[in-house]
Parts: sequence; C-alpha cells; structure tokens
Amino acid sequence: MTNSSFPAAPLDPNGKGLGAFPESCTSADVAALQWNLLREDVSLPVAVLYESRVRHNLQWMQRFMEAYQVKLAPHGKTTMSPALFKRQIDNGAWGITLATAPQVLAAYRHGIRKVLMANQLVGRANMAIIAQLLRDPAFTYFCIVDSPANAAQLGAYFGEQGLVLPVLIELGPAGGRTGVRDDTQLQAVAEEIGRWPGLALAGIEVYEGVLQEEGAIRAFLRRVTDALRGLAAAGRLRKNGPALISGAGSAWFDVVAEEFSQLDIGAPLEIVLRPGCYLSHDVGIYRTASERINAHNPVARKMEPGLQPALQVWAYVQSLPEAGRAIVALGKRDAAFDAGLPTPALRYRPGAQAPGAAPAHWKLTAMMDQHAFMQIGEGDDIQVGDMIAFDISHPCLTFDKWRQVLLVDEQYRITDVAGTFF
Amino acid sequence: MTNSSFPAAPLDPNGKGLGAFPESCTSADVAALQWNLLREDVSLPVAVLYESRVRHNLQWMQRFMEAYQVKLAPHGKTTMSPALFKRQIDNGAWGITLATAPQVLAAYRHGIRKVLMANQLVGRANMAIIAQLLRDPAFTYFCIVDSPANAAQLGAYFGEQGLVLPVLIELGPAGGRTGVRDDTQLQAVAEEIGRWPGLALAGIEVYEGVLQEEGAIRAFLRRVTDALRGLAAAGRLRKNGPALISGAGSAWFDVVAEEFSQLDIGAPLEIVLRPGCYLSHDVGIYRTASERINAHNPVARKMEPGLQPALQVWAYVQSLPEAGRAIVALGKRDAAFDAGLPTPALRYRPGAQAPGAAPAHWKLTAMMDQHAFMQIGEGDDIQVGDMIAFDISHPCLTFDKWRQVLLVDEQYRITDVAGTFF
Repeated sequence: MTNSSFPAAPLDPNGKGLGAFPESCTSADVAALQWNLLREDVSLPVAVLYESRVRHNLQWMQRFMEAYQVKLAPHGKTTMSPALFKRQIDNGAWGITLATAPQVLAAYRHGIRKVLMANQLVGRANMAIIAQLLRDPAFTYFCIVDSPANAAQLGAYFGEQGLVLPVLIELGPAGGRTGVRDDTQLQAVAEEIGRWPGLALAGIEVYEGVLQEEGAIRAFLRRVTDALRGLAAAGRLRKNGPALISGAGSAWFDVVAEEFSQLDIGAPLEIVLRPGCYLSHDVGIYRTASERINAHNPVARKMEPGLQPALQVWAYVQSLPEAGRAIVALGKRDAAFDAGLPTPALRYRPGAQAPGAAPAHWKLTAMMDQHAFMQIGEGDDIQVGDMIAFDISHPCLTFDKWRQVLLVDEQYRITDVAGTFF
Repeated sequence: MTNSSFPAAPLDPNGKGLGAFPESCTSADVAALQWNLLREDVSLPVAVLYESRVRHNLQWMQRFMEAYQVKLAPHGKTTMSPALFKRQIDNGAWGITLATAPQVLAAYRHGIRKVLMANQLVGRANMAIIAQLLRDPAFTYFCIVDSPANAAQLGAYFGEQGLVLPVLIELGPAGGRTGVRDDTQLQAVAEEIGRWPGLALAGIEVYEGVLQEEGAIRAFLRRVTDALRGLAAAGRLRKNGPALISGAGSAWFDVVAEEFSQLDIGAPLEIVLRPGCYLSHDVGIYRTASERINAHNPVARKMEPGLQPALQVWAYVQSLPEAGRAIVALGKRDAAFDAGLPTPALRYRPGAQAPGAAPAHWKLTAMMDQHAFMQIGEGDDIQVGDMIAFDISHPCLTFDKWRQVLLVDEQYRITDVAGTFF
C-alpha cells in the first residue's frame, strides 16, 4: 500500500474541489496542509475517496483473484489515476488494463510498465504512441485485433519500425460490440496475424459484459476457451512467451474466474481478469452486480464484508426556493448520471459534530450542467450551506469529471490527492 | 481576434487528441508543428473547432447584442477555455459569465477581470476564493443571492474581510430552479442584503431557460423588469455603480434581448445577456433553438447565415464485426450523450483527397464509455481505419470531455490548441 515511490504531482491551481495551497504544492504536501472536509477547507463540490474502504476493496479483489489463481489487470480507464494504479500494483496486480493509446502513454509516463490495452489500436498517431513505448524493453503491452484489415495495418506499421507487437484476438457474441463472431472470422484474423513478422499472437481477449445473462455468458466463455485450445493446438500462438487469455468487466468477474481458471492448454498460460470499478465500487449498477456475486460465488461468499462504496461527491445546498425542493450545487459536470442519479447518503451542517444519514426520502429528480434538483419533505431540517454527500452509480463517468480526487480518512481529513488523466 | 496577449500554455503530454510534440511545447508552437488532421498527425478521438465558423459565430453574436444595445457576457462554463474567453472578449464581450468559484479562479488566473457568476456563492472555501480575487481592484465580480440565509452568510464573511461583495437577486419561476418565487421572498432577500455593509445590491438576475414556452418566458421577464423598477424606486440598489439586469441562456437570448432592451429604470443600467453555446453551436438542441430565433427575431432574420456548428469530434472506425454494424472508437468520455447522440457528418479514408459527407443512414444507436455503435447499411463503403467526423448536440457536455481542443483551418491544419479547465 505504500505510495512512496510514486512521483508527487503538483496540485493544479485551476482545479476544482481543492482548498487553498501555496504555489508548487504537490500531492506529497497535502496531508501537511491539514485540510478537513467538515471544516470547509476545500471547495465543494468535491469528489472524495475513503482511504479505508479503498484499501479494503483493493485487498478484497486481490484475494479473490488469488483464490482462483488468476491475474488481476484492473481496468484503468475507470479512474485514469496513476496514483490509484500504483496502489493496485502495490496490492499485487499483474498490470493495468487501458482503452486507448493516450491512456497507455499517460500510464507509462507515471511508471506503469505492463499494459493490456483491451481495445483495437487504430490510426497512425495512435500506433506511433505505442511504437515509441515498445522501444523500452521494460515495457510489456498487448492490444486486441478482430479484423484482418486491422491486423494488416498493424503488421505493416510495426514491421516497418522493426518492432513486434503482441496481440490478442478478440471474440465477441453476435449482436455485441467488437470481436470476431465465428470461427471463420477467427481463422481469417489468425492467418493475417501469422503473415506479419511485426505481429505476435499471444492469445484471446473477450468482454463478456455486453451479455446480460449468466447462462449466455458461460456458453460464450466456453466457446472462448475452446477457441484458445484450438489456436494452441494449431501452433498459432507465439513461442517466446506465455499464452494469455483475458476477460471480465466489473459485473461478471466471478463467472469469468470460474470458467477460465479451469483452462489447461498444455502450455504456459496467463489468465488475466480486468474489473476496474471495484476500487471505488458504487451503490448502483456495481452494487447490484456484487449482490449476485456475493450470493452465488463460493469464494466471495466467504469474504465478508464485500466491496464497499468508497467514492462520494460532496456538495452544498445552494437554494431552497419552494416547498419540497432543494437545489444542490452538483451537476452533470460532477457526477455520473447515465446509470441512476447520485443518491443523498450523508448530511452535515458546518459546525456540527459529525455527519448523519441523509433522510431516506431525499432524492435527486434531475440534474443540469451545474445543478441538481433534490426532492425533500416539508419541514425537513435543511438549510442553505448544508453539505450533502452523494453516493454514485457508475464510477467511470464520475471519475472522469474530476482532475483531482481527494483521499480522506475516517475523520474526514484529506490525506492525499489523486490526479486523473482523461 | 488577435490572441497574442494570451499566455501560451504548455501542451499536456498526458492529454488525448494530440500529435507528437517536443517537451515544453506550448500552444504558441502548435501551428509550427504542421499537424494535419487528415494526415493522421493527431491521435483520434479528437475534438476540433473550425476556426472560420468560430469567428463567424463570435461576430454574429456580438452584432446581435449590439443591435439591441445590450452587453454580452458569454457563459464560460460551456467551454471553460480561457483561450476562447479571450476571443470572446476581443470580439467585444463585456465580461465572462461563470458558474462556480473554482471556474472564476481559473478564468482570473488567465486574465479575465470581469465576471458575472450566475450562481449562488456557498461555503467557506468558495467564499475565500472570491475574497482573494476581490482584493484586486481591477477585478469586477457579481454573484447571485436568492435567500436571506445565503445573504447573511455572505454579508458576515465579506464584511469580516473588509470587502464589499456586489450581488444580484435571482428571480425564478415557480417549479423552476433557483431564484425567489414571489415579491415577499424578493423583499426579504433585499432587506437582508441591506443589513450587511459587506454586500451591495446591484440588480437582478434570471435564467429563463427553465421555462419551455415563449409566452411564459415573456410574462416572467416582464415580472423581472417590474421587480427591478421596484427595487430602483425603493432606493434598494447600490449608489456607486450602474444597476445590472441579466438573463439569457443559449436558447432564448433573442426574447430576453427584446424584453430587456426596452427597460428604463431612470438610472444607469447595464443589460447583460449570457448565452454560451453560440461559440461552437451544435446540430441538436441549439440548432433547434436557432431555427426559432432565425424565423422570428427581426434582427437575426437579417443576419444570414446564422450560427454555424463549429465543434466536431473525429474518431476511427475500429471494428466491423457483423453486417449493419460499425464500432467507432468514440465514447461517453468523448462527446455529450444526454441530448441526442453525436451525428456522423463526414467520412474520410486516410490517403484520400478530402472528406465527403457521411451517408445519411449512418446513425449512432448507443454509446459506452469508450465505444459507439453505428448502424450502417450492408455493402456500404466503410473500412477499419476510416475517420468519421461527428456533429454533436450539447456543447457544454462535449467540451468538458476534453482538456485540449484543437482549432483547425479549412485545410484541416491544426492552428492552435485551446486548453480547458473543468
């Protein structure tokens, strides 16, 4: 869990959700500033991660993966925060998963040296970014391919550069997102990859999360393991490194672990799972997912307590213009709104001893760019200037609203600032 | 239109949507890098503003406001880009409108010295940000108040600091967002403001955009002008500066100009309108709004052509996994999706002469964090690696996905990079 070798980043004086700080203050100096959220030392709205819950979640997921003897490459697109990547690596993660070439570059620039880019690499400038990084022999990288056309583009580009690009073939279900749909397409892509000395086929990648139902997911995953066995048996896989199979978003990692951990291809194999949202978890789509996991997966069932919601956005009540309505200074610029609106969790009146639970009948009914409409009851004890902590649904689209996220301890002291690079 | 006095900002090597550049390259060096969008010199997805259309839009809105002899304080929350604020000021804007204290600080740090914060100022750290800026006698600032409670908080804070905070009372329609609903509330706020030497009442502010219908908006605006006349007649307004009345989002600025430009309160008065989206315009909610404006407003009718959509997001086709479906490397992290999905406008195959119109039947059907699903026809001429330029709906929630937006000329050469501070 030590964060000590991670380079401290200067705080951005143009940023939101911070307190006052001297010029050239870095994240390493933040604890010494002694900001406290409850003492109104920082500008609201602010995004906060609770240190202890983050630590619990990091350890929970690592233990889960170890129980299945599979590797964890957390999807870094969730937080895009190298300071949080560092915590994931320090807790035992194999590497970091990312979605785009600029994300890979930002991670590399902050010390990440093993990346699974769970996406196609397309376009000359994006290939140039990756080529530059591949020249570092300490850097390990995989991307995915699902068409002969893309394989040929990559083969030509990386071959010309005198580089070898390790790739995984993506399989996808019919009606899904990316990925070859059938064995004919799979073989065509494998053959095209085989033609290019600039490419090395390392294995298979999937994203099962486009399917919604466990039976369909298990059937799909078995097709995937069959396909990898087939590629191995046909001698299609690279010889100078282990084979790799990768799947799992944040909703079905248990099922993927169960299916993939059974796999034996008669050769060295790394099984890499990629949940990303577990670090912060949420009270929406991922809480729903974890309820299923905790109920059905034999390993998760024994790991009480499960993942904890560790990310909240705090904001002020700014107006109480009419009965039953509070306007909160929290907008679509501050929290995800695509998978349920933020949920009032805590209330705090500056000067009081400690936050209390927000009344259960408080509810956001709409959000605008910079405002939220909160339904309240008549006669509720609420004032302009009260602070409300909101739980969120969909961490990915909450983190990307913040360039700097505060880490807080149990006393709401700010202990660190995690920069993001979206 | 000169941008010369604006301090050049270093390009962010962790950013997306850029090409390769040497260390310590600034926005002033970008043109010399000779990046061209069509030559694949920059990483896609990328957000681009078309220089000539931006220039047209800046001039169009300024001329519109001048025709009504009202001031323009563009809402800067749309772009949060000081380089674009500078262009708005250079074209004659009175100042910049902003929504939060950190936005005001970021603008101030980039040279903006006149700000209407069209929002309540709540919380100790936010007040501290503004107090620090008010100590600069060259800085002009107004915020809005709609409750005696907030007036008392502000009066106590700024009075203790020995500062005088100029405020506007906000009026809001019943069922709307912030703002006092009736005359009783208005008088209570005005009285509370009058009690505090740390506050100066400068006038009234409204946001009519929460109403959806012209008749209701005109009736509301007339109540607002009556209210300002009443405050002036009662001697409630500050003596050491002009009175101020402000309204207008990007959808109803014509109606606000028509109503407010009639106003005479028998004392110096500044009428300040705040559309923000006109700089980039769009092909969604604001095109719809401008169709009404161009059809009905006598000034706009004569200003052909009207506002032009100037912001596009370019992205690659990354997969063609099954008939009728293309997957595009463009996600909810790259463009607004809350008021209509992005619309394919142009297609370009690297190496070709010039982009052509995207087929009218190409249509996004869904977006995920990093991907878009595009419906295409069977047999369409489309390949992995093709570039597609998307028009967008809702610029505010597109700009906030980008830390750096490229300005391009008619030949798709990148002429400048505008940083944003969300």
